[in-house]
Amino acid sequence: MTISLKTFNAKENGSRMYQLISQLYPICRSITGDGVRKTLHILQEHIPLEIFEVPTGTQVFDWTIPQEWNVRDAYVKNSQGKKVIDFQHHSLHLLNYSIPIQQKMSLAKLKEHLFSIPDRPEWIPYRTSYYSDNWGFCLTHKQLEALEEDEYEVYIDTSLEPGHLTYGEYYLSGASEEEVLLTCHICHPSLCNDNLSGISLVTFLAEYLKSLDLRYSYRFLFIPGTIGSIAWLALNEARTAKIKHGLVVAGVGDTGKFNYKKSRRGDAQIDKTVIHVLQNSVKQYQINDFSPYGYDERQFCSPGFNLPVGSLTRTPFGQYPQYHTSADNLDFVKPDKLGESLAIYLEIIDILENNYTYISTNPQCEPQLGKRGLYGTFGGTQDKKTKELATLWVLNLADGKHSLLDTSDRSGLDFTVIRDAANALVNGNLLKINQ
Amino acid sequence: MTISLKTFNAKENGSRMYQLISQLYPICRSITGDGVRKTLHILQEHIPLEIFEVPTGTQVFDWTIPQEWNVRDAYVKNSQGKKVIDFQHHSLHLLNYSIPIQQKMSLAKLKEHLFSIPDRPEWIPYRTSYYSDNWGFCLTHKQLEALEEDEYEVYIDTSLEPGHLTYGEYYLSGASEEEVLLTCHICHPSLCNDNLSGISLVTFLAEYLKSLDLRYSYRFLFIPGTIGSIAWLALNEARTAKIKHGLVVAGVGDTGKFNYKKSRRGDAQIDKTVIHVLQNSVKQYQINDFSPYGYDERQFCSPGFNLPVGSLTRTPFGQYPQYHTSADNLDFVKPDKLGESLAIYLEIIDILENNYTYISTNPQCEPQLGKRGLYGTFGGTQDKKTKELATLWVLNLADGKHSLLDTSDRSGLDFTVIRDAANALVNGNLLKINQ
Amino acid sequence: MTISLKTFNAKENGSRMYQLISQLYPICRSITGDGVRKTLHILQEHIPLEIFEVPTGTQVFDWTIPQEWNVRDAYVKNSQGKKVIDFQHHSLHLLNYSIPIQQKMSLAKLKEHLFSIPDRPEWIPYRTSYYSDNWGFCLTHKQLEALEEDEYEVYIDTSLEPGHLTYGEYYLSGASEEEVLLTCHICHPSLCNDNLSGISLVTFLAEYLKSLDLRYSYRFLFIPGTIGSIAWLALNEARTAKIKHGLVVAGVGDTGKFNYKKSRRGDAQIDKTVIHVLQNSVKQYQINDFSPYGYDERQFCSPGFNLPVGSLTRTPFGQYPQYHTSADNLDFVKPDKLGESLAIYLEIIDILENNYTYISTNPQCEPQLGKRGLYGTFGGTQDKKTKELATLWVLNLADGKHSLLDTSDRSGLDFTVIRDAANALVNGNLLKINQ
Repeated sequence: MTISLKTFNAKENGSRMYQLISQLYPICRSITGDGVRKTLHILQEHIPLEIFEVPTGTQVFDWTIPQEWNVRDAYVKNSQGKKVIDFQHHSLHLLNYSIPIQQKMSLAKLKEHLFSIPDRPEWIPYRTSYYSDNWGFCLTHKQLEALEEDEYEVYIDTSLEPGHLTYGEYYLSGASEEEVLLTCHICHPSLCNDNLSGISLVTFLAEYLKSLDLRYSYRFLFIPGTIGSIAWLALNEARTAKIKHGLVVAGVGDTGKFNYKKSRRGDAQIDKTVIHVLQNSVKQYQINDFSPYGYDERQFCSPGFNLPVGSLTRTPFGQYPQYHTSADNLDFVKPDKLGESLAIYLEIIDILENNYTYISTNPQCEPQLGKRGLYGTFGGTQDKKTKELATLWVLNLADGKHSLLDTSDRSGLDFTVIRDAANALVNGNLLKINQ
Repeated sequence: MTISLKTFNAKENGSRMYQLISQLYPICRSITGDGVRKTLHILQEHIPLEIFEVPTGTQVFDWTIPQEWNVRDAYVKNSQGKKVIDFQHHSLHLLNYSIPIQQKMSLAKLKEHLFSIPDRPEWIPYRTSYYSDNWGFCLTHKQLEALEEDEYEVYIDTSLEPGHLTYGEYYLSGASEEEVLLTCHICHPSLCNDNLSGISLVTFLAEYLKSLDLRYSYRFLFIPGTIGSIAWLALNEARTAKIKHGLVVAGVGDTGKFNYKKSRRGDAQIDKTVIHVLQNSVKQYQINDFSPYGYDERQFCSPGFNLPVGSLTRTPFGQYPQYHTSADNLDFVKPDKLGESLAIYLEIIDILENNYTYISTNPQCEPQLGKRGLYGTFGGTQDKKTKELATLWVLNLADGKHSLLDTSDRSGLDFTVIRDAANALVNGNLLKINQ
Repeated sequence: MTISLKTFNAKENGSRMYQLISQLYPICRSITGDGVRKTLHILQEHIPLEIFEVPTGTQVFDWTIPQEWNVRDAYVKNSQGKKVIDFQHHSLHLLNYSIPIQQKMSLAKLKEHLFSIPDRPEWIPYRTSYYSDNWGFCLTHKQLEALEEDEYEVYIDTSLEPGHLTYGEYYLSGASEEEVLLTCHICHPSLCNDNLSGISLVTFLAEYLKSLDLRYSYRFLFIPGTIGSIAWLALNEARTAKIKHGLVVAGVGDTGKFNYKKSRRGDAQIDKTVIHVLQNSVKQYQINDFSPYGYDERQFCSPGFNLPVGSLTRTPFGQYPQYHTSADNLDFVKPDKLGESLAIYLEIIDILENNYTYISTNPQCEPQLGKRGLYGTFGGTQDKKTKELATLWVLNLADGKHSLLDTSDRSGLDFTVIRDAANALVNGNLLKINQ
């Protein structure tokens, strides 16, 4: 497959990505529960997503699928009956995975369960307590400071019951059973860059690819962070051997520069490909070595799997102040940045799809290109010279050991020029794919 | 063999090289024809060159030996009968491989077949049309602009007939059947740096080496560019396995700095050797990676051969304005530069000849050098200290894995000092060559 | 074993090291003789040193144990009977290994046997003549210039007779038969930094380690330079296969920065360990490639052994003007520098002892650290975050291929933090040592 990147409309796609984010923003998601289901149902309007339910109590490697958590309502009322904190106003107000409670208490006692950010008095923090029973509210520091001595009514109407962990998966079949994995986390409530930008990118990437003839098969995962990837790996262990390239998608809507975090291997084809695209297509970027801290690459790159999975984001998690606060909102992500991110992911996939190694049918000396119309006789434009040089490079490295990406990197010529030269040589029977 | 570089007279040899260039300059050469034969006969006055004739129509890999081309005369006359372009004045005036023609035509029609360089109005360009039937004249832009409206008589008395491709070869037998290849192209008409400087260097290099006891056998090729190397490789395929080191010789007479283009392998012994010599013996030089564009290294380094063949030139082809014009003449090449180039080639060969790996006969601990007179007891001059250090380095790396060149590079000591230390240790029975 | 480096008192140990140096300083040592025996007996007051005697004439590889040399007295008297040079004043005054002589001679004749340093008129040089019969005196240049025309009586009462080469060895048995070698030379007379600082460091290092439970066995050698290491290697050839790491100890008492000279291999674990410690624990240091010139690493790294033995010194031999002169005295070495050097050697050993590779018992995905109390739930101090990150790194690289030192280098986290994380994971049954 060759993606016609010139006809890809980054602006239009960026707008659609932003629209989807807007639609998903109000939903309160967590690692389990109806928020996740609602989210996945909306995505099914775009792609034929299959939804999987893993029962509470299922053992997945060292972990156990926890009880399912759902929220009906949650607030704190003062003695006048006024709701001073209200989950209906913002899904971040409730400590994620709060146990149910209905109780009256003093301000002092209440404060033990309140979380704010003193340095950012207008922002609500995002907090969770998945694996230890607790309850709490998150609020702006302004709100916190406005609370007076009073008797407060705390009301949290949540359920923590045996149920399921829910995730979505779309398998797009290509010519080969070898797979490209694209995965994002879906467990955060109203957070736009961290969570929704990745969901949106993977959705539209899948939508775009599903109409094409593809070399690889593609697996798109929409999973809760950590426990979701662990569950998927535990339930699909045998399939992981098919994964040839993978990317964890997150944080692709802010205005920061691209950051690529290499796979644990460090020199996998996906690493070389992303680095190549960033070097050639964007002005500013940063390449980071793998570390076992971050998104779900932690699991895909655990030593027992060590899959060739990297992560391409814009500003990395935790490195922008809005991270895990209410300021990671619809103002923080930008349609044009979303569209540009999707375009870069497509460039990467375009290279993966075309990055064959070839064998020359005339390995001894150069074939006579002139008689085949593949070489100029008198002078020629710069463009023609570049094509000729690309042709010579492809032939010279068509020894079954060098991929087109290697050839592009070694020659300093654009991957597309190299790819076009290879295709012309295949058509002229001077090259064949190294099976 | 150890070349006594101190007794090599670069100046005298440079003068002789220049004289040979002067003698060959007027001859109109091409990829076939009597110009090549005449050139090779002159070289036979210096070295016992064998001349080979490959018939027209012979298939050599993907190519076919073309018809032989010879020129008797060629000119353009104006209506007054005056020759306004005359092949007898300069061999570059005729488009190389022009078909025969005798015809009257207007200036407009004639101009379709004229080639000049507007930016360099005093220079005649060099053009060829080997594989598509055409005729033409090359002239200075001044000449072109002086042509008035008139009826011109075009007269090209060439022959394009079944014949031969001619090349010269001199095989100098050494102690080993392993070969060093030195090759130059002989297909250019009156061009001094591009063509004649290489021919001259290879000739005098062969002449110099033929009186020595050599470790390697040497193969000196004088071949037409591209088709000549392809023909040689096709006809000598089985022999290529003997080629251990090789250099394509060209452009060694101008005043520019040395440029070494690595073999496709990039880390062959020839690559390390040339880089070592340039690092240690010249002030300015440049090392370039292999690319499949250039001289006959394109064929020797095609993937089916991948021979350890690099190319050592001064200014690379195409990077000086005089390239492929009449300005690449007897003024452009300098006797002292030719002599210096030959000296550098000899230094390279001196290292190749001496670059053995050794095995220490006392690998455990140092041997007692003092009792053998190989180590000073009290102090000593700087020179003596250097010799002692060289002795220790050679012994320490005499494990059959490190060559003397490796030892020189790792120790930072001159190759000659390292080589002399190794020879002294061999004489003292402390070292033997690793067979 | 984990060395409690925080409780190690560098200052106190430095003082003790200096005291030992002071005690050994007056003794006239050589490559054989009673000075060496006296020195080793003093060391036996600190560590259970075994003393070995190798008879004169014993063949050790390419060398032969020489005759034993002992001095009773040596002086030069002028015609008034005044001793103008007196061995009793300084052991350096006598050319080491001088043959006996008693003779009267003119100043001119005497001067042929006198050595001084014109540039350093107050210093006595140190000279030897082990393997060629000679006699001589070393003196300050001032002394030399003060000598008047006179008849001098030269009296050297030395013996050169069949005897022994003497060396000391202490083998400290650890859990494994694999060994760490620590070796110093003991053949120099009154020289503090070159010789005594190394002797003192190895002695107190051995004394410190002997009370600990050790992973490795340790071999401490106190041997004459060159002939001593050659003798030890010849007599212990079979044992050398057990040596996994080694350091040649010398020049550790001056005020210069640390210099590490890599083993011949260049990438041995000892090389990585020393470089790691210098990078992390000292401000200024220099790493030098191996060269076959220096101390006894010359023998341990000869090609037939090629042991992983480097050398950690302060200012390298020959690079300070006091080297091999009477100015390398008790003023030149400093107690605090000696103590700091010992602390650095202990840090190196601490890493060697703890530098295991591990296998994760949960290689697929991360184990759930939270339920084991190995991971924080809410925020945490910087220290806690560092510990969590160290835990994740250790788990991620627990594939049996990465040592803790690799993990420390790759993560940028302190070795001690990494080691503590590994120990906690072993206790939690999440990790086991890769046997």
